[in-house]
Amino acid sequence: MDHIKQFIDANKQRLLDELFELLRFPSVSADPKYKDDVLNTAQYVAKKLRECGADNVEVCPTAGYPIVYGEKLIDPAKPTVLVYGHYDVQPPDPLELWHTPPFEPTVRDGKIFARGACDDKGQFYMHVKAFELMMQTDTLPCNIKFMIEGEEEVGSNNLGIFVKANKERLKADVVLISDTSMISMETPSLETGLRGLSYIEVEVTGPNRDLHSGVYGGAVANPATILAKMIASLHDENNHIAIPGFYDDVINLTDAERKAINQAPYNEQEYKDDLGVNELWGEKGYSTIERTGTRPTLEVNGIWGGYIGEGAKTVLPSKANAKISMRLVPNQSSDKITELFTKHFESIAPPYIKVKITPHHGGEPVVTPTDSVAFRAAEKAITESFGKAPIPTRGGGSIPIVALFEAELGIKTVLMGFGLDSDNLHSPNEKYDIFNYYKGIETLPLFHKYFAELSAK
Amino acid sequence: MDHIKQFIDANKQRLLDELFELLRFPSVSADPKYKDDVLNTAQYVAKKLRECGADNVEVCPTAGYPIVYGEKLIDPAKPTVLVYGHYDVQPPDPLELWHTPPFEPTVRDGKIFARGACDDKGQFYMHVKAFELMMQTDTLPCNIKFMIEGEEEVGSNNLGIFVKANKERLKADVVLISDTSMISMETPSLETGLRGLSYIEVEVTGPNRDLHSGVYGGAVANPATILAKMIASLHDENNHIAIPGFYDDVINLTDAERKAINQAPYNEQEYKDDLGVNELWGEKGYSTIERTGTRPTLEVNGIWGGYIGEGAKTVLPSKANAKISMRLVPNQSSDKITELFTKHFESIAPPYIKVKITPHHGGEPVVTPTDSVAFRAAEKAITESFGKAPIPTRGGGSIPIVALFEAELGIKTVLMGFGLDSDNLHSPNEKYDIFNYYKGIETLPLFHKYFAELSAK
Repeated sequence: MDHIKQFIDANKQRLLDELFELLRFPSVSADPKYKDDVLNTAQYVAKKLRECGADNVEVCPTAGYPIVYGEKLIDPAKPTVLVYGHYDVQPPDPLELWHTPPFEPTVRDGKIFARGACDDKGQFYMHVKAFELMMQTDTLPCNIKFMIEGEEEVGSNNLGIFVKANKERLKADVVLISDTSMISMETPSLETGLRGLSYIEVEVTGPNRDLHSGVYGGAVANPATILAKMIASLHDENNHIAIPGFYDDVINLTDAERKAINQAPYNEQEYKDDLGVNELWGEKGYSTIERTGTRPTLEVNGIWGGYIGEGAKTVLPSKANAKISMRLVPNQSSDKITELFTKHFESIAPPYIKVKITPHHGGEPVVTPTDSVAFRAAEKAITESFGKAPIPTRGGGSIPIVALFEAELGIKTVLMGFGLDSDNLHSPNEKYDIFNYYKGIETLPLFHKYFAELSAK
Repeated sequence: MDHIKQFIDANKQRLLDELFELLRFPSVSADPKYKDDVLNTAQYVAKKLRECGADNVEVCPTAGYPIVYGEKLIDPAKPTVLVYGHYDVQPPDPLELWHTPPFEPTVRDGKIFARGACDDKGQFYMHVKAFELMMQTDTLPCNIKFMIEGEEEVGSNNLGIFVKANKERLKADVVLISDTSMISMETPSLETGLRGLSYIEVEVTGPNRDLHSGVYGGAVANPATILAKMIASLHDENNHIAIPGFYDDVINLTDAERKAINQAPYNEQEYKDDLGVNELWGEKGYSTIERTGTRPTLEVNGIWGGYIGEGAKTVLPSKANAKISMRLVPNQSSDKITELFTKHFESIAPPYIKVKITPHHGGEPVVTPTDSVAFRAAEKAITESFGKAPIPTRGGGSIPIVALFEAELGIKTVLMGFGLDSDNLHSPNEKYDIFNYYKGIETLPLFHKYFAELSAK
């Protein structure tokens, strides 16, 4: 498609500069100290949508951070694509591990290093620019709506309320999201499922104050030790999750499905080398691809208690805490798993400590259909821009909104991710390849074209 | 002794004001950011010793924080008492739990609240003021030497070197230390032993960077989970320490010794109520008094890894750390236990993580003789000032210096502590009762008197 390549070539630097401007906003939704930055980011996104030609652009307030909405309705007879993305990002810490400042995007061998470069600013902004491209070249083939939220990294708590209240405005034929990964630049793929999430914070309290470990040590339960014992018991010797009923609703894949999933290119030595580990770890009886894509998991995301400063302090801490999250697979329910975890964790709490459990947020697992018009349009678009058909994969991450859309609006989602697993999402030195950014801007107009064509048939 | 009571009555407010001045120095030796404050504290202590009439006062430099020395030698024929104390304090955190600022001493119902109020500023300063008292009233009955260090809370690393290099200057007949506790104001006691210490920091490293728990969760060992499993395995189901050889050198108390130790007044319900716990925890087969005084223990002093900020971050951490210390009983060796721990911890490290072990500092356990002239002098002094004979107890804490003195100078120590276990040593809201402070200033001159008398016989 010449007009696409021409537009990108003519605007190469500007397309990059605008993304950099967006990446400079430290829009960390998890940390209240960034509140103003998050709000300013929403205003910037709205401004950009207007500039590209979107109508009815609005920064819609919620009980939390606002949702940016905008649309271009060209013909009620044409199909409508609802683009979802999020302008908030993960916290940048540990800061000391960043090679360049997280909110000052820096290019090193063709990669943009910045928090949010891939997750999700770099990816949702491709849609904004693809929209500008279609407007400029007068090739927008269908109606398009944008909904860019600011609370994805903290559980999208207010999105459900917004969607319920705006069903008419959000009416569409498909939801299009770029917030996932491809296997590699040489091996494009399309995710056909996502894991759900149940995220919990636990607090174990022993004595009512920090104590001198010499005076009281040996006579009072140490909450750090007890928390360690409780966490240790959450996986059995085969690394199955030892919470009663945890696997009850899991639908095991058929041998054929397992075989298909394991077709994806995977080199264990390269995988280990990239992570710098001598041996992998995981649930017995499953491959790495199955463990990360098709099996539920339980991870400690954070743990803290007692003296963690420099030097030595001989204290017996009063409290120990942990953040623990579980990834869920299709047919598991976030609420049910949260309840099972809570019941179990309370049941294994010994009498000499108190335990407090606070659920953070959850999201339901999803499977997206591979036989829909939208999925076929995505396949055609990628095949054309990459010169290669995409491999269907199962994603390990979670995008709660996908299940929400299906439940509230009855619309299926297509996950057209252009990131890479090596993009350090949620890690220091998050990056996004410039190649992928342009490739997305090139591919997305093709999706709209084929989606309109195939829908017309 | 009238002259003692008269001096105290005449100087009551000043004695308190000077201690408050000392307590306002944030002399936290564990944290480099307080370096200047620690150094200024040493200068203040030297100034006070001079004002009280000590000779040859010197702030002796070391590779770390200086040691303050001063002396008053009245007669080579008379015995010599070497007073040891420390002017450094524990870190004040967690700050939010203090009811009043840790370095702004505040009096509430007869108690001085401040970091170091009891450990050890309030206690060593009693000796300085008791010395002033004896100088003013012309009643100093023996030679006295002061050695006040600034690294006790970080392991007294440079004290050994100083002692070795100053054997002649430090020559004495007994070491007198007030850095321990009494049972209560109504029940004075004298500690006859102290536990040793082995303090270790461990770091467990999994992947070479923090990872997205959705993308990698379930396929890579989580260092927080692994550290939890390793810590959980350090105590068996009876809360014995599960390190091979750990108890080999422990000399079990005789039934008679156990009986004597358990005579000390102890009310389990009061003990639990004070700590706010429903049940106590400890090594099976031993009483609380035995567990804290006569048995070795292992405590997690701090643990941290992953995201510990506000909100939820779905990260699979690269590292998890813990500070772990062990209290040792007589005949155990700090170096040997550190080595046993290190070997064991490395041996239980699974192949999918790396473990790094860093010893912080140690100290040897000690037992002090109860039949010495010095011990009897202490008994007489306390009996006179409290109107009640002290009960011999075993202390749970550690003062590495005691064993060092015995080894390097061949001098025994008398532990004349006036603190209380409820003084929140190493905890928020550390306090020292004004009653105990004056009581110490009243009792110490009596010790010197009886020590001189009994030594002459």
